[in-house]
Amino acid sequence: MSRFPLDETHDPAATSWVVGAAEPDTDFPLQNLPFCAFSVGTETPRIGVGIGRMVLDITAAAEAGLLDLAEAEAAACAHPVLNPLMAMGPAAWQRLRRALFRLLHKDAPAPWRTEAAVSCLVPMAGLRFHLPVAIGDYTDFYASIDHATNVGRMFRPDQPLLPNYKYVPIGYHGRASSISADNRPVHRPTGQRKRPDDAEPSFGPCRQLDWELELGFLIGTGNAQGESIAIEQAGAHLFGVTLLNDWSARDLQAWEYQPLGPFLAKNFATSIGPFVVTMAALAPFRIPAHVRPESDPAPLPYLFDPADQAEGGFAIDVSVELRSATMRAASGQFDHITTVGFQHMYWTAAQMVAHHSSNGCNLQPGDLLGSGTISTPDPAAVGSLLELTRRGQAPITLSSGETRSFLQDGDEVRMTARAHRDGARSIGFGRCEAVIVG
Amino acid sequence: MSRFPLDETHDPAATSWVVGAAEPDTDFPLQNLPFCAFSVGTETPRIGVGIGRMVLDITAAAEAGLLDLAEAEAAACAHPVLNPLMAMGPAAWQRLRRALFRLLHKDAPAPWRTEAAVSCLVPMAGLRFHLPVAIGDYTDFYASIDHATNVGRMFRPDQPLLPNYKYVPIGYHGRASSISADNRPVHRPTGQRKRPDDAEPSFGPCRQLDWELELGFLIGTGNAQGESIAIEQAGAHLFGVTLLNDWSARDLQAWEYQPLGPFLAKNFATSIGPFVVTMAALAPFRIPAHVRPESDPAPLPYLFDPADQAEGGFAIDVSVELRSATMRAASGQFDHITTVGFQHMYWTAAQMVAHHSSNGCNLQPGDLLGSGTISTPDPAAVGSLLELTRRGQAPITLSSGETRSFLQDGDEVRMTARAHRDGARSIGFGRCEAVIVG
Repeated sequence: MSRFPLDETHDPAATSWVVGAAEPDTDFPLQNLPFCAFSVGTETPRIGVGIGRMVLDITAAAEAGLLDLAEAEAAACAHPVLNPLMAMGPAAWQRLRRALFRLLHKDAPAPWRTEAAVSCLVPMAGLRFHLPVAIGDYTDFYASIDHATNVGRMFRPDQPLLPNYKYVPIGYHGRASSISADNRPVHRPTGQRKRPDDAEPSFGPCRQLDWELELGFLIGTGNAQGESIAIEQAGAHLFGVTLLNDWSARDLQAWEYQPLGPFLAKNFATSIGPFVVTMAALAPFRIPAHVRPESDPAPLPYLFDPADQAEGGFAIDVSVELRSATMRAASGQFDHITTVGFQHMYWTAAQMVAHHSSNGCNLQPGDLLGSGTISTPDPAAVGSLLELTRRGQAPITLSSGETRSFLQDGDEVRMTARAHRDGARSIGFGRCEAVIVG
Repeated sequence: MSRFPLDETHDPAATSWVVGAAEPDTDFPLQNLPFCAFSVGTETPRIGVGIGRMVLDITAAAEAGLLDLAEAEAAACAHPVLNPLMAMGPAAWQRLRRALFRLLHKDAPAPWRTEAAVSCLVPMAGLRFHLPVAIGDYTDFYASIDHATNVGRMFRPDQPLLPNYKYVPIGYHGRASSISADNRPVHRPTGQRKRPDDAEPSFGPCRQLDWELELGFLIGTGNAQGESIAIEQAGAHLFGVTLLNDWSARDLQAWEYQPLGPFLAKNFATSIGPFVVTMAALAPFRIPAHVRPESDPAPLPYLFDPADQAEGGFAIDVSVELRSATMRAASGQFDHITTVGFQHMYWTAAQMVAHHSSNGCNLQPGDLLGSGTISTPDPAAVGSLLELTRRGQAPITLSSGETRSFLQDGDEVRMTARAHRDGARSIGFGRCEAVIVG
């Protein structure tokens, strides 16, 4: 018996009356209902839900009485960020999901509502997106053993994977202030760089700017300081998932990261996707967690839950596309660079939550937990240029004939993701994209 | 010519009419005026300023028209945290400081104001304190070369001080959610511990719980993402300083910290003092920065400012006291454990700000920058038990006859600090204290 049972909102045959929602390749069919924060022109941000080629203004829909919600739930929909709603817990989230599903279903039981809902829809194209969540703390994990091994091999050839990796879901604190969800340009950072032959470091623009392809898990309800979240309960504390690009300055990182970890190499910018796909929407895509080889140690008891092993993985493919300034001026097309499967991750989201809170650290609604760069055993299916080009030794060639060891000014990086599985309606995550500016 | 000139508010002869403010050893003479957030009973927090044995309710004083402030400044005083005031910048901070100074001066020019101010005073004893600032991001630096060397010697005997230390003001992101200013108890964290002879890690209560004696610098005005703060400007972005105890679980830290730095070993709790001593109050205590030995590299240009070298240090002594449960039940007295001088720090606060923002990372009002553990070349004047006891090899003996390698349940740690210098009225930071609970 799954802790994440399917219901009417996962019926693959259900469709919406909203334009674009029935198209097979849409990211936003009726089964998805991902959250965002948006504005039109100079209005203040409002929360919405993606459906087809539109966004439903949830605040307006709740105010108009189109959603069957308790008063407190409707009030939580009136904020420009999701945090008040997230703090209400899974039962409230589920009532809102069902209410949205029924309102947007093509066979909606109350036609007057459908008519009223039309006035709450705005076209997705041209919207300005904002952070849908006030992120109090951002933690970045390192849950891909393939990524940890690939990177470790470059920096510590004698010991690519450290002895703690298979016991500890390694993570570190990131910077909350520089996270954005509006696809804003990323400024190439300056910093201290020191090449192996340099006698001293120099200060200047980053020469090894990279993306890191991740998913971000958002905490719904938190825990009190001094208490912890048992792994069996961890799933109920998670609200949703977003695309995450953990921009990285590899040359700054190599020089600064000892002994306290990455700092300026990461904190200049982190991009998340405009949409939060809920854990409820992802229920059909739960698969067994990565199976540890017999030779690996079993997780310590506080990190081990048979149910999590059985359904703690996700059938999600995450992709990176790239377009140079030259390509933008010519065809305008992006090159597909790589697609990685999330099922290879060594640690599950529930393990991250249980570990993070195991010492009494208080998680709060809106906290962001990055998965870490998603890589796989396939050298072509890895989540960073660092790994794809073997630290610049094997540059990739773009369709324009240009080559890339690391990112150049004018390059645009786009991340997308799809959850798909036999018997389920596939859903997507929208686009997380940004152009590099010098 | 100093960037931090003295004015009437630094006159060492000035005294206040408030009870206790004229006592020679008070932390809170008229020259200090440190900020706090407090509540009485179950009231919501309000911002205040420490004076003698009292706290002046700034919100009430501003509302009563007792402070010569512009309308926007008075409105900023009505919030339960200092952030709106901090965002207004040094000119507003200075107007508020002067207005408070004049109101509380024993020769205040307007007697009616003095009489009205009495009703805005509450006794400090018995107040509940709260975080005076909403801390968006917390960064912990590592600015004591003696601490870095002492710790490095234990973990990397072959290379105590890493090659980047003298070039990079090393720092890492900490956890904002678990910072408190109310002297609440600290729960002993649980986590993975692995002794050198253990074949595998085990999960259980921390066996090596430690304090870290630091000062915390609070950002007043920030910078836009993609821009940086020049070191010459950095001082104007700093609002104030607080005591900071960066509680550390040494056994968790030793096992988890590679390759991404400390995580659960630190994020279970960070205690700051209830009071923020402003940079304005600290102007008389500015001294030259630590002088680098000739053999050390010069700071890179973005970290070098002759004025900062001339007045970027602070004449502040910071102390730790300890009391066990046994001592509490007997005399009630604390043992003085150590006092360290802040003038030994290798990197200045201005260098931390310039470095932190050098890559375009956006600092925001209320961000907290920890100095890192304050140690000195004297093995008895170091900021952690780890260093004092040489990782437990040389336990300290308390006045009760008990010994300590690391902290036991029931132990209380108290941190205090005094700025003092010839010709200036000495000021203090209040007490940052907490008891360990199992």
